[in-house]
Amino acid sequence: MTSSYGTSLRLTLFGESHGPAVGCVLDAPPPGLSVDPAAAARHMARRAPGRGGAWSTARAEADAPEILSGVFGGRTTGTPLAALVRNADARSADYAALARTPRPGHGDLTGRIRYGGANDPRGGGHFSARVTAALCFAGALALQWLAARGVSVRARVAEIGGVADGPAPDPLEPLPDLSGKPLPALSDDAAAAMVAAIEAARAEGDSVGGVVEVRAAGLPAGLGAPFFDRVETRLGAMLLSLPAVRALEFGDGFACARRRGSENNDRPTPAPGGDPLRAGRATNRAGGAEGGITTGLPVVARLAFKPTPSVAREQTTVDLETNEAVPIRVPGRHDPCVVPRAVPLVESAAAFALLDLWLSTSASRFP
Amino acid sequence: MTSSYGTSLRLTLFGESHGPAVGCVLDAPPPGLSVDPAAAARHMARRAPGRGGAWSTARAEADAPEILSGVFGGRTTGTPLAALVRNADARSADYAALARTPRPGHGDLTGRIRYGGANDPRGGGHFSARVTAALCFAGALALQWLAARGVSVRARVAEIGGVADGPAPDPLEPLPDLSGKPLPALSDDAAAAMVAAIEAARAEGDSVGGVVEVRAAGLPAGLGAPFFDRVETRLGAMLLSLPAVRALEFGDGFACARRRGSENNDRPTPAPGGDPLRAGRATNRAGGAEGGITTGLPVVARLAFKPTPSVAREQTTVDLETNEAVPIRVPGRHDPCVVPRAVPLVESAAAFALLDLWLSTSASRFP
Amino acid sequence: MTSSYGTSLRLTLFGESHGPAVGCVLDAPPPGLSVDPAAAARHMARRAPGRGGAWSTARAEADAPEILSGVFGGRTTGTPLAALVRNADARSADYAALARTPRPGHGDLTGRIRYGGANDPRGGGHFSARVTAALCFAGALALQWLAARGVSVRARVAEIGGVADGPAPDPLEPLPDLSGKPLPALSDDAAAAMVAAIEAARAEGDSVGGVVEVRAAGLPAGLGAPFFDRVETRLGAMLLSLPAVRALEFGDGFACARRRGSENNDRPTPAPGGDPLRAGRATNRAGGAEGGITTGLPVVARLAFKPTPSVAREQTTVDLETNEAVPIRVPGRHDPCVVPRAVPLVESAAAFALLDLWLSTSASRFP
Amino acid sequence: MTSSYGTSLRLTLFGESHGPAVGCVLDAPPPGLSVDPAAAARHMARRAPGRGGAWSTARAEADAPEILSGVFGGRTTGTPLAALVRNADARSADYAALARTPRPGHGDLTGRIRYGGANDPRGGGHFSARVTAALCFAGALALQWLAARGVSVRARVAEIGGVADGPAPDPLEPLPDLSGKPLPALSDDAAAAMVAAIEAARAEGDSVGGVVEVRAAGLPAGLGAPFFDRVETRLGAMLLSLPAVRALEFGDGFACARRRGSENNDRPTPAPGGDPLRAGRATNRAGGAEGGITTGLPVVARLAFKPTPSVAREQTTVDLETNEAVPIRVPGRHDPCVVPRAVPLVESAAAFALLDLWLSTSASRFP
Repeated sequence: MTSSYGTSLRLTLFGESHGPAVGCVLDAPPPGLSVDPAAAARHMARRAPGRGGAWSTARAEADAPEILSGVFGGRTTGTPLAALVRNADARSADYAALARTPRPGHGDLTGRIRYGGANDPRGGGHFSARVTAALCFAGALALQWLAARGVSVRARVAEIGGVADGPAPDPLEPLPDLSGKPLPALSDDAAAAMVAAIEAARAEGDSVGGVVEVRAAGLPAGLGAPFFDRVETRLGAMLLSLPAVRALEFGDGFACARRRGSENNDRPTPAPGGDPLRAGRATNRAGGAEGGITTGLPVVARLAFKPTPSVAREQTTVDLETNEAVPIRVPGRHDPCVVPRAVPLVESAAAFALLDLWLSTSASRFP
Repeated sequence: MTSSYGTSLRLTLFGESHGPAVGCVLDAPPPGLSVDPAAAARHMARRAPGRGGAWSTARAEADAPEILSGVFGGRTTGTPLAALVRNADARSADYAALARTPRPGHGDLTGRIRYGGANDPRGGGHFSARVTAALCFAGALALQWLAARGVSVRARVAEIGGVADGPAPDPLEPLPDLSGKPLPALSDDAAAAMVAAIEAARAEGDSVGGVVEVRAAGLPAGLGAPFFDRVETRLGAMLLSLPAVRALEFGDGFACARRRGSENNDRPTPAPGGDPLRAGRATNRAGGAEGGITTGLPVVARLAFKPTPSVAREQTTVDLETNEAVPIRVPGRHDPCVVPRAVPLVESAAAFALLDLWLSTSASRFP
Repeated sequence: MTSSYGTSLRLTLFGESHGPAVGCVLDAPPPGLSVDPAAAARHMARRAPGRGGAWSTARAEADAPEILSGVFGGRTTGTPLAALVRNADARSADYAALARTPRPGHGDLTGRIRYGGANDPRGGGHFSARVTAALCFAGALALQWLAARGVSVRARVAEIGGVADGPAPDPLEPLPDLSGKPLPALSDDAAAAMVAAIEAARAEGDSVGGVVEVRAAGLPAGLGAPFFDRVETRLGAMLLSLPAVRALEFGDGFACARRRGSENNDRPTPAPGGDPLRAGRATNRAGGAEGGITTGLPVVARLAFKPTPSVAREQTTVDLETNEAVPIRVPGRHDPCVVPRAVPLVESAAAFALLDLWLSTSASRFP
Repeated sequence: MTSSYGTSLRLTLFGESHGPAVGCVLDAPPPGLSVDPAAAARHMARRAPGRGGAWSTARAEADAPEILSGVFGGRTTGTPLAALVRNADARSADYAALARTPRPGHGDLTGRIRYGGANDPRGGGHFSARVTAALCFAGALALQWLAARGVSVRARVAEIGGVADGPAPDPLEPLPDLSGKPLPALSDDAAAAMVAAIEAARAEGDSVGGVVEVRAAGLPAGLGAPFFDRVETRLGAMLLSLPAVRALEFGDGFACARRRGSENNDRPTPAPGGDPLRAGRATNRAGGAEGGITTGLPVVARLAFKPTPSVAREQTTVDLETNEAVPIRVPGRHDPCVVPRAVPLVESAAAFALLDLWLSTSASRFP
């Protein structure tokens, strides 16, 4: 398996950028869970290109997913749930020359080596971020199922092009719902400055990166395990699989490495309700996990996205037929910044990983 | 499974801090690989406590592993390789009170919830870093097998207590062999300052964290896959499973998020040998992977370790019987800084993950 | 996972009898393998209903699969290959009453318990043999890829309604290609008697079962492992997953239990070519495996299929609303014998399992 | 993985016949389950050689397992449970010549090819039935945990050397506890005749095979899934992994293939307690599963064991150095019949597989 994720609920992604469709199979959601396709489509629309402002490609995708199986009468059947999204607007001609001159920062060259030249080069093939439309759909369902149990998984743009989203909110609290904002940062002033940074990069034929923060609030304490089923491991494996991600922090992340132990520990506090196993913590520097297991506080992670490697300005690459350095301008329509569109994707990805972790933890208890 | 890792070569860790032994099973290494138990023991000695200087606990462990199966005539048989390390020096009495008053920053409370109170609380049980002795052994074998194919996996202390190891070396190059140094940083001056920082923390009954960098050089291009088998995913899942890790960067990591695309791309360069599929890159900002697949350049990662949560100075916690806040001083022998001992562990962990990725990639080609 | 099979090449089946489609995802075939969709469609046509004689339902399915991903330029890309078959001719009304009165011998009642009533009851939902169209497609590809390496996987009807297909052919040899026969038995006389037995059962509103034999010839020696990756385990897990299978023999199967050791062993014979590791065997009572690993002789298995549980004649069941015994006549169109249509399905299933085993064995060798 | 089994509870076997030890790791049992090591040792003693009568080898093993991890205060911790059994009495010299002259019916030759000559040839190495001592231990725990929930998993000798154990008992009922009998058949007369058949074979330097039946009674209805998680698939994959097994039937097995549908269906009957979802069946021809899911009736399976391939009388094999046919008499101590000792092993194996299936089914429900 190479495009599958999950232990108790297995997600497999399929599709190429310029093939007939992208899609996914979930094997298999618990039976009897409500499915709201319209809400899923709305969530996916936040990721879709051509809807946003300065940062979005002009490519218009018809991202309405078709559910092929696993849903009956509006509820999951408990057997595999498959869905696809047709690729409606693909202009393969844009990419014809790229088989010979790999785009800097893309998987064109590594993919060619990996697959012996057999992979689909059009638009990056299975390497394309287009495939994440299917992940976004799978996560939209996970978000619905978690929400029904009181769990919110929300993300925000924490930084774009060096512009930060003001002070971070209290990590003991969930993030607010930012899904209505075109650029989902907390601060509207910061968002405006971010848009300006994106516009400036685009004007120069360039691109910018940024940071996304995600928080999952409302999870029960006790999910995970001390080694390879840590919250950090399971959530990390999902988030590090997103295209363009270069780094990941949990809780205070790198800042923890510069503290003393007495400053970094989250001290247990008496449980409000009287059940000491529901003890709180005075702080949430750990980002919701101790010993790899959820504390019941929000799970907090931050992801660094690199700037879009496809830029209009001239770069150099190698001509694979002549083995000579040649100039390249990457044709096609490309986002000058993927970060705003990544926000719903990060929510989807995190929700899916945490749902799977929850199911796995349950699986380890005898009924 | 909760303590298992790997796709083509599966590692399972077992054992508790104060139980009879810790150990591992590898199911199963390729047949016919040479095994050097003495070299493995030397590698493990770098992680063992009681050998180092200021930063190491006084607990002396007899870390000589016993190989139980899977090796015959000095070579792997191709069937499961099991090994154990006996626990020789465990003083359980130190930990008796902790079932009632969970240590801040440890998995005492989350573990109790997760396992319904059935887990072994002595010394943290399976949560103990003691279990990583077995991971260190498994990785020692992976290091040997990779070295036989020209791959070096080496780590260094990049930072401790806010003291950095001077300028980072060229990411196009491997790290030097630092295994002979008690504190394996590149700069001896920086190492001395790090030791001073550790001593200062210990003198105040406190602890410090730090950052470890690891590089794997010599891997072939073409290992990995664009989604859930990315180099970042597979290596990340392993590294995020190490106790005390709070963050992870590949290549330039968070710094990438602040660059423009034209500044961040690693531009392909003509192949020295003439085979364009062996094209190089002018830089290695990506840390050895494009599209989730190795480029042939060194794979570079950095890990943030939090300060040891066990500190001698007084903290507060909750008494689980009374649900009241109470003071706590964590008894026992604890490292004021785990980072130096983590260096061989990070090398082990990374080597194992990359070996498994290599085997998985091979598995996807028809013989 | 509940509808997934495979270690190195993972197959996931999806779909319900009366939903939009059935299909599969393969994650992921080795790159660069030729795909012949027309040959796959011809293979699937052998399984499709409405094409055969007495034994086949009148339901006409449009079984032409649509490949959604993973194939480019007529070859596998090495990334997931998804395909679907639309459900064209479903009359759900036939099945409406069955939610209340479970059909004897079907999974109606166990499925309702398993999925808490959420599963799709129409036509059996995901329990339907309709889903095996997708398995048949996946196997058709495996058959092509094995054939390109000189491996034939062929099945025959060994028995129907108590009528046997004459003497079994020499197990040291492959089966002939019977794909052109409407009822693929070796003996045409036996086939005629089998058809008569099916007709007789149908005339009485009843059904008959039978036995299918499958042989895979041309596999290399050395595939498998002594415990849970035995040829028998991996092939058995696949074959026992086919609907209506109640028993499975390898080689001489139950007859081995009645022999003495000296009569049952297949004695090694000198290798014709001179390489003693290519030693033959004087007989093939073991069915191509020793110690769970292929010998290089044909892998031989026999499968018992129960008679179709859906019969027109009156049976009794329970009314789930009143908890009273009630008579039932199963409506709809049902095969009086599934065995002839099962032959290409068994070939598909066996080919897929053996291909996956081959890839897994390769994966355990260091490149 | 090649020596691992299980989805929710993963068992890995390790060890070689003449190495330091055999053992297993379970990753990981649910927390809080009682462990009775003495009862496990008694169960293992039924499988151990040197304890029985005519059919047992003279090799005396010290089969007392040492639990290394995962048990604290007499209960499972929820983290990996490892155990080993030391190999006390191994005479490797017996086997020295066999690397050159493979024993007929063993994995000597296939193993040599599979592992490129690196596997341990002494006593069959990891191919040895000795490894099943560890499986027997793992199953002994599964038997205890199932028994605590009212499930009995019991086996009997149904046939040895052509001597059958009289009429099969009612498949709607559990088997009685036969653990006190040296040859656990229902009929003492049949058992005496079986012993005579074994003695006769041994007297002629030969061996006999037989059939074991296993029944699991008391399982809830609703375990399994319609495709690759069928009861038959999951239980079958385990049972077909036992050395010497050549065939497997569920319920009436091959006899079903010779019936008509109206004769073979198990007709639902009203539930005694009034809850129609607890409907019974008038018969149990299916062996406890419909649509791959448990009915609540006993799960019934029968296994064919081939005769021990190691026989004292002369056979022929190939000399791998000369590629010539040579006579061989297999030295060492060998059971003339493995079937009596296989009975507790089959119970262990079935119990483990059904426990894992139960846990997997639970895992697919949202808590």
